[in-house]
Amino acid sequence: MFDISHLAEVRSVMKKEGLKAYLVVTGDPHDSEEPAPYFAAERAYFCPFSGDNAYLLITADDALLWTDGRFFISAEQELKGSTIRLMKMQTKGYPTLDEYVAEKKLYPLGTNENLISPRFLKGLSKGGEVLDKDYSYLVKDRPSLSKDPIWEFNDKKYNTLSRDEKLLNVYQEMEKLGAEAHLITTLDDVAWLLNLRGNDVNCTPVFYSYLYLSKKEGTHLFVDPSRIHFELKGITVHPYGEIASFLAAHKDVPTLVDDTKCSARLFNELKNPVCSRAPSNLMKAIKGPTEIENIISIQEEDGVALLKFGKFLSEHAGEKLSEWDYAVQLGKYRAEGERYFEDSFTTISACGENAAMMHYAPTSKVHSVVDPDRVIELLVDSGGQYYGGTTDTTRTFLVGKPTPEYIHDYTLTLKSVINLSSTVFLDGCSGTAIDIKAREIMWREGMDYKCGTGHGVGYVLMVHEGPNGFRYRSAPGKDDQSRLVPGMVTTIEPGVYKQGKYGIRIENNLLCVPAFETSDGTFYKFETITFVPIDTKALDLSLLSDSEIAWLNAYHKEVYDRLSKRVGGDLLAYLKEATKPVSR
Amino acid sequence: MFDISHLAEVRSVMKKEGLKAYLVVTGDPHDSEEPAPYFAAERAYFCPFSGDNAYLLITADDALLWTDGRFFISAEQELKGSTIRLMKMQTKGYPTLDEYVAEKKLYPLGTNENLISPRFLKGLSKGGEVLDKDYSYLVKDRPSLSKDPIWEFNDKKYNTLSRDEKLLNVYQEMEKLGAEAHLITTLDDVAWLLNLRGNDVNCTPVFYSYLYLSKKEGTHLFVDPSRIHFELKGITVHPYGEIASFLAAHKDVPTLVDDTKCSARLFNELKNPVCSRAPSNLMKAIKGPTEIENIISIQEEDGVALLKFGKFLSEHAGEKLSEWDYAVQLGKYRAEGERYFEDSFTTISACGENAAMMHYAPTSKVHSVVDPDRVIELLVDSGGQYYGGTTDTTRTFLVGKPTPEYIHDYTLTLKSVINLSSTVFLDGCSGTAIDIKAREIMWREGMDYKCGTGHGVGYVLMVHEGPNGFRYRSAPGKDDQSRLVPGMVTTIEPGVYKQGKYGIRIENNLLCVPAFETSDGTFYKFETITFVPIDTKALDLSLLSDSEIAWLNAYHKEVYDRLSKRVGGDLLAYLKEATKPVSR
Repeated sequence: MFDISHLAEVRSVMKKEGLKAYLVVTGDPHDSEEPAPYFAAERAYFCPFSGDNAYLLITADDALLWTDGRFFISAEQELKGSTIRLMKMQTKGYPTLDEYVAEKKLYPLGTNENLISPRFLKGLSKGGEVLDKDYSYLVKDRPSLSKDPIWEFNDKKYNTLSRDEKLLNVYQEMEKLGAEAHLITTLDDVAWLLNLRGNDVNCTPVFYSYLYLSKKEGTHLFVDPSRIHFELKGITVHPYGEIASFLAAHKDVPTLVDDTKCSARLFNELKNPVCSRAPSNLMKAIKGPTEIENIISIQEEDGVALLKFGKFLSEHAGEKLSEWDYAVQLGKYRAEGERYFEDSFTTISACGENAAMMHYAPTSKVHSVVDPDRVIELLVDSGGQYYGGTTDTTRTFLVGKPTPEYIHDYTLTLKSVINLSSTVFLDGCSGTAIDIKAREIMWREGMDYKCGTGHGVGYVLMVHEGPNGFRYRSAPGKDDQSRLVPGMVTTIEPGVYKQGKYGIRIENNLLCVPAFETSDGTFYKFETITFVPIDTKALDLSLLSDSEIAWLNAYHKEVYDRLSKRVGGDLLAYLKEATKPVSR
Repeated sequence: MFDISHLAEVRSVMKKEGLKAYLVVTGDPHDSEEPAPYFAAERAYFCPFSGDNAYLLITADDALLWTDGRFFISAEQELKGSTIRLMKMQTKGYPTLDEYVAEKKLYPLGTNENLISPRFLKGLSKGGEVLDKDYSYLVKDRPSLSKDPIWEFNDKKYNTLSRDEKLLNVYQEMEKLGAEAHLITTLDDVAWLLNLRGNDVNCTPVFYSYLYLSKKEGTHLFVDPSRIHFELKGITVHPYGEIASFLAAHKDVPTLVDDTKCSARLFNELKNPVCSRAPSNLMKAIKGPTEIENIISIQEEDGVALLKFGKFLSEHAGEKLSEWDYAVQLGKYRAEGERYFEDSFTTISACGENAAMMHYAPTSKVHSVVDPDRVIELLVDSGGQYYGGTTDTTRTFLVGKPTPEYIHDYTLTLKSVINLSSTVFLDGCSGTAIDIKAREIMWREGMDYKCGTGHGVGYVLMVHEGPNGFRYRSAPGKDDQSRLVPGMVTTIEPGVYKQGKYGIRIENNLLCVPAFETSDGTFYKFETITFVPIDTKALDLSLLSDSEIAWLNAYHKEVYDRLSKRVGGDLLAYLKEATKPVSR
């Protein structure tokens, strides 16, 4: 854990070694969004900030943390007293990390090249020398990497394609790209390709490993061999730590590698890299019929958990339970699901000013009481990992007395959801081209939420997955600008965040499906595959158009039809009430 | 002019020199959209196609022409009997040029490296050897390059910034990019930067030249010196043909160059290129206050010409004049404008099946009669070059009896115009992010127009200008994906094209202006700066929303207010009638 003295430790080593600055990165050698505790310990040791997507730059007399808009509010609070200053990404008046390093001439700059991409390194190195320095030895009490068994997920009932079929497809793509070999460093790509899963990262069933495909020498998996208790036919297993020396021994082979995701250290071993996105990345994003059938089924299961939660909340709103109590309760309901095995991320259960912090999550120690006399809403953003899919859903429940401003903002948020969800678009569109459908209703009023409208969702994998997403412009480090095609699952999660007041977000998962084909082209649309009632109590129906009301009623009818098969008694009665049609 | 024997001539030289294929490119060494007759003669000699954006690939026993959707219909007609086959760009089932060359292993491939960009060359060379071959000596009767005097356009009444101020700004950008020198090869950048104009290209007041800025050696202009009859203080003038040897003598200087627009031949002279968009490119797109004031004023002048034309058409529709007659008549009206000096492109005056061909233009010999008994509409797409700006406007006039399908499509086109024109958007959006506002109404019905929704417009320069535009996805060779900012002028020109039936397009010019600034960001919107009545006779008002009708009436009120100051008598009465409010 962070202590201000740790900054002094780094500075003393920096001084000894003649570094002008040291850069601590959030991450692991696999470009994971959430690194395992073993890697996460590093930034936590030097910095009290808890969000992701951040860089900590330590100079002789200053320390600066860059992070994005989701965390501006929480970062300001967490950094208090740390001497670390917040630098806001993509915000007027704040230089980027690269610009800052170049402008202040902070060279030589030290950083751990195992944790950054070649492009990142190139950007950093523009104005001077960057040295590969690893000060992780300073970190005390670092947890070890997982030793848990890796589990097979190769059954036909889970996957449209078998491990061998997936590998064959990737080998064919390598051929097209003129590569003899292919280094895969991203954990979800390895897990997806091999139809394997692990428990190494909280909420994400991946395992620390590298995969190397060679047309001549076959398929090689780098992972702690003691964790594999089954046969992996046709795959040679090497210890995790041997990847660098293996690459060095094969350095001249034309090797397909995603240089935006591979670590600079491994990338530099390759003398003949063929730089391109890993073919598995797009294959993984396009869910096949088996995956889609499973996802829809576990979404219903997830919907039941959230339905029980909605009922619980409606019955206990007056009891001044805490955000944490509610999160625990939701966890219990989700655990009742037959195929559930863990959450897909830490549940956000937040009211009032906490909900205004986009990625605030309560803990057993730090949380607020959901007091209907003090707060208007409870925002619950949560998801599950199921044998059959990954979910990510947000509902904002009315618990107190809504102000006209809140009613207006809540209604606007729903309109955003409806407008993008019901878009029809031509093949060739990325999320960039259609994001405005969610935002325009807010933009017209001078409002905007400081995050993407949505992200891809993995299949029993990462809850944030590229390359699909909804974002009106590209954002550094975000891989979400790809063409949208049927089979992709993307969240839609617009919101309104009023600092110190409240936060509103409504989030569904959208499956891209064919709409129609005409002489002018192939058109796509979305199916909403989250089945959870949307709280209608804070809606101003006069702000909804006829077609928006029709969308809402049709959605609620579908939620009723799907969940009513799975529940009975009081819960069914609650479902009926929660999904009853609205009208002006 | 094309003759089928010319293909045989090339093939005979190819055979002698051992080439598998020869590629004829549309273009000049300056990446001009419309090359001067001197350069255009080359493709015209080998190919009867008249559109732009095309490549002709000649192999021993085949000839293929790639072009884009604007020209599919006209290309099919023009290529008849030529033995040249049409290859449709961005169309399922058609390989790209690069793919085709690689797949058929057409190496060595010959092409004139003076006419293609380094990236284009790289794409071509992926699968084998490309040789710099110039067979332009085969072309008989090639016109010479222009000897016309270049004219000064440096007056304060025309430009917010003087020549020296513009150069200073570019030198500052060079500094930021770490370049010691800057090679500018695009004609409109040279003209804009130096506040000079010429008559070298039909409808575009540029002159053939290169500009070289050197921090050490000052500013060098490469142009026929006999064409300059005034002092160019601080600028050294060299003959046009000396650029290559000059670059060779300065090859080691870090030189800023746009490698997407510079010719491969010149680019290869530079040993130390700093590859980036020319800074003048964006500066030129963002019109200053003087330019905007002038543009709006000459748009009124242009509006008067089109108003006269509308009146003429309404009075002569029964007389079975031809498309060409109407184009000539419009030319006469435009020439009455005080500041007009030439058209900004060849006028498209097209009815019925001709209008369905997006870029058909009538000639004195080839045209149709606008017969109200046979055709529904006359589509007129035209623009002027004025001392004060460049215009580009399309109106589709009802001349015959509209079918329900036509009324529906015409109304949809207007809805497209209104929806994008009235969009409010956050700073950071490119045209990609907002293009859907024009297209969605058509997409919902399975319709699409096979071109961008709009392009940037130059200032007394090219009628098609980057880097702004409206296009839902990037298109090869199109530079229109930049962030939209106030001062940019972009056309909006959605349409419906029904092969063999009719073509509908409504086109205005939109000026990007600030909308408002809030705590959530800086927002922009558009002002329509084309002032020409929109024919309301074929509208189905029941398909327009209240706000769309309000937009149309407000637009017509503005057109009336602006033009009524400039016209009187019968024309004023016609204006009043043409702009009268509509209601359901």
